[in-house]
Amino acid sequence: MDFRILKKDPETKARTGILKLPHGEVLTPVFMPVGTSATVKGVHQYELADDIDVPIILSNTYHLYLRPGIEIIANAGGLHPFMNWTRPILTDSGGYQVFSLAAQRKLTEEGALFQSHIDGSRHHFTPENVIEIQRKIGADIMMAFDECTPYPCDYDYAKISMELTHKWLQRGIHHFRNTEALYGFDQACFPIVQGSIYPDLRKKSAEVIANAGMGGNAIGGLSVGEPEEKMYEMVSLVTAILPETSPRYLMGVGTPLNILEAIALGIDMFDCVIPTRNGRNGMLFTTGGVINIKNEKWKDDFTNIDPDGLTFVDTQYSKAYLRHLIISKEILGAQIASIHNLGFYSWLMNESRKQIESGRFRMWKEEISKKLENRL
Amino acid sequence: MDFRILKKDPETKARTGILKLPHGEVLTPVFMPVGTSATVKGVHQYELADDIDVPIILSNTYHLYLRPGIEIIANAGGLHPFMNWTRPILTDSGGYQVFSLAAQRKLTEEGALFQSHIDGSRHHFTPENVIEIQRKIGADIMMAFDECTPYPCDYDYAKISMELTHKWLQRGIHHFRNTEALYGFDQACFPIVQGSIYPDLRKKSAEVIANAGMGGNAIGGLSVGEPEEKMYEMVSLVTAILPETSPRYLMGVGTPLNILEAIALGIDMFDCVIPTRNGRNGMLFTTGGVINIKNEKWKDDFTNIDPDGLTFVDTQYSKAYLRHLIISKEILGAQIASIHNLGFYSWLMNESRKQIESGRFRMWKEEISKKLENRL
Repeated sequence: MDFRILKKDPETKARTGILKLPHGEVLTPVFMPVGTSATVKGVHQYELADDIDVPIILSNTYHLYLRPGIEIIANAGGLHPFMNWTRPILTDSGGYQVFSLAAQRKLTEEGALFQSHIDGSRHHFTPENVIEIQRKIGADIMMAFDECTPYPCDYDYAKISMELTHKWLQRGIHHFRNTEALYGFDQACFPIVQGSIYPDLRKKSAEVIANAGMGGNAIGGLSVGEPEEKMYEMVSLVTAILPETSPRYLMGVGTPLNILEAIALGIDMFDCVIPTRNGRNGMLFTTGGVINIKNEKWKDDFTNIDPDGLTFVDTQYSKAYLRHLIISKEILGAQIASIHNLGFYSWLMNESRKQIESGRFRMWKEEISKKLENRL
Repeated sequence: MDFRILKKDPETKARTGILKLPHGEVLTPVFMPVGTSATVKGVHQYELADDIDVPIILSNTYHLYLRPGIEIIANAGGLHPFMNWTRPILTDSGGYQVFSLAAQRKLTEEGALFQSHIDGSRHHFTPENVIEIQRKIGADIMMAFDECTPYPCDYDYAKISMELTHKWLQRGIHHFRNTEALYGFDQACFPIVQGSIYPDLRKKSAEVIANAGMGGNAIGGLSVGEPEEKMYEMVSLVTAILPETSPRYLMGVGTPLNILEAIALGIDMFDCVIPTRNGRNGMLFTTGGVINIKNEKWKDDFTNIDPDGLTFVDTQYSKAYLRHLIISKEILGAQIASIHNLGFYSWLMNESRKQIESGRFRMWKEEISKKLENRL
C-alpha cells in the first residue's frame, strides 16, 4: 500500500491523495459503498464499476464469516473472485457487528464470544483470528479488532474499553506481522482510534494508534448516536494527532454533510449504509436537496429523478415511477434508489476533490451544504 | 395490428410468425415476461431490452388500477412512458386477479364487485370499464374481461361462467369499437376462450371467440391446477377451431415443457411468472436441466451459473455466489436469477423458432424436453 498526498487545501485540513492498493488506485477523499454480505444491495458489480465508478467497496467480516462462511470464500480464492469484484476491498473487523447485531456476546480479555444473529450458533472472535479471517477474505485493507463503545458510555467504561482495544491492537499487529497474505498480493491493516466522546481518551488513543506505525489509521465509535458537534470535535482532536502522511478513515460516516465536514477536518476515507439503506426507504440525495420520494407531491411528477444525476437511472426513470415502485415495495425501486444515491455520493467525492484541487473547497462546502439541507 | 405466418412445421401445428404492433415487431412464438406492477421484478427496463432482448412484456390491469392508479398512468401518457418501456405491452383484463387475489368479490351479470387486497377499498370491474382502463394504460394489446373459472369446477358452473364470459365479450367488443385509443396508436383487443376442462364447453367457447372476429385470440382458465394432459387436450381442441391466421395466446403458461408442448399445438404467445418468481426462490432453468441453487451441492461450485447462458449474469457470477445471495435473501440474488431465467426463456423461444424454420421442431422438442427435465 502506498499513499501520496496530491494537494492540501489552504483554508481547511482537507487534502486530496492517491491510495495505491493491490487491486487498483483510489483517489481520496473516497466513499466506500457497503457490501455487507458480499453484495452492495440491489446493485450489480458491473454497475458499481462502470455506471457509478466506485473505486473501492467495504464488506463486513462478521457477515461473511457467518454466511457464506470463510471456508467457502477461501475456496473461491478470496472475496474478489467470490463476488467478481476486481477493484479494492476493505473489510471491517467484525467488532461493530458483534456488539450491535449478535444475539448474545461476552467480552473477555481474550476476545468476544457471541451468538450468531442468524441461527444462534456460538463463535469467538479474537484479535488473532479476526486477522486470520481477513487473510482468507483477502481484502486489500483489513481492520484490527476493536470494541466499538456504544453511546452514551460513561468515562470509566470508555477508558477500560479503549485500553482493551489497545491491547487487542498489539496482539493483532503481532499476528498480522507473523502471517502472510494468501493470494499473492499484500494486505494492509488499519488500527482504530476509540475513546468515546472524551477528549483525553481520544487524544490518548490517537497517540497509541499513531505510534503503531501502520499504513493507515481509522477512527471508530463515532456516528453512534452522539451529537454531531461532539463527533466533529473528536475527529478534529484525532486528525491533529494521526500522522498526516497516512490515510485517515472515519468509520460508518455518514450523511453528505457529515462527510463534507469530516473532509475539512482531514479525513480521507468514508463508508456508510445511508445511500443504500435510506434509498431503499425512499430517501434520495440530490444537489438541490433531499427528496422523500414517498411524498404525495411526487405522484404526478414525471420529470427525471435527477436531471443532474450521475447515473443512468436518473434520466431513465421519473420521480412518479420511482415513487410507485418504492411504495409498492418493488425490488426495482430499491435498485434505482440505491444506484441514484451511490451516484450522488460519487459525485460528492469527485466534486470535493476538484474543489480541493482548485483551492475553493471551504467556500464551496458552505454553499453546497445549504443546498443539501433543503427538503424538496 | 398485423400478423403474418412465416413458416409452418410439417409435423406439428407449430408455426412461426411476425406480429406487428404499434411499439414494434414481435417474432412468434414469443414469451412475455410478467411486469405485474409496471416492473418485471428485479430487472431494469434496459436489461430487458438490451441484455435479454425481450420483445414484449405483460402487465396486470388489476395491479396497475389499484397502484399507482389509472389516473397517474393516464397523466404520464400511458404505461409506456410511465415505466419507460418502448417496446410492445399486453395487459390482461384483471379478471384473473379479481378472482384469485381480491379480498372479497361478488359476481353479477353487470360485472365484478371486489375489495382491494391492499387496502380493502371497494371497486367494480365491468366489461366496459376494463376497456376504458386499458385505453388509459395504452397497451398494444388489451384483453376482454372474463371470468377465469377455478379448478376444479363442476360442469354446470363452468357452463354458466363461460356464458357470462361470452356475454361480457359482446359488451366489451361493443365498447372497444365505440371508443378510441388515447395516445395516437391503435390498440388490439383479444377475447378469451373459457370452458374449464369440458371438451364441449371449450369447443363452444372457441367457436364463439373465433366468430368474434378479433385480431388475435386467447385461451384462459388453464394451468390453474388441472392435470397437464387435460391442459394439452383443451389447447388442442381449441387451436383446431381458432382461426389459423390470427395469433393464439395461452394465458399464464408455463414451464419450459408446457411451452414446447403448446407451441406444437399451435400456440404463438405465452406469459408466466415462473421464470421470475421461481428464480427469486432459487430455481434456475438451463439447457442441461433444472438447478435448485439452494442445494448444498453448489456451495463450493465456483463455475459460471450457466456457461451456455444468454445473459451477462451467467458468466459474471458463480453458482456458489448466487447460492449465497439467494440463501441470504439478498436483492442481487433475485436480480441475477430473474435475468438468468428470462434469458433462458428467451433462448427457448429463439431456438423454437429456429427449429420450426428448419423443419426439425418435433425431433428437437423431444430431445430438449428430456434434458430440461433433468434435476441437476
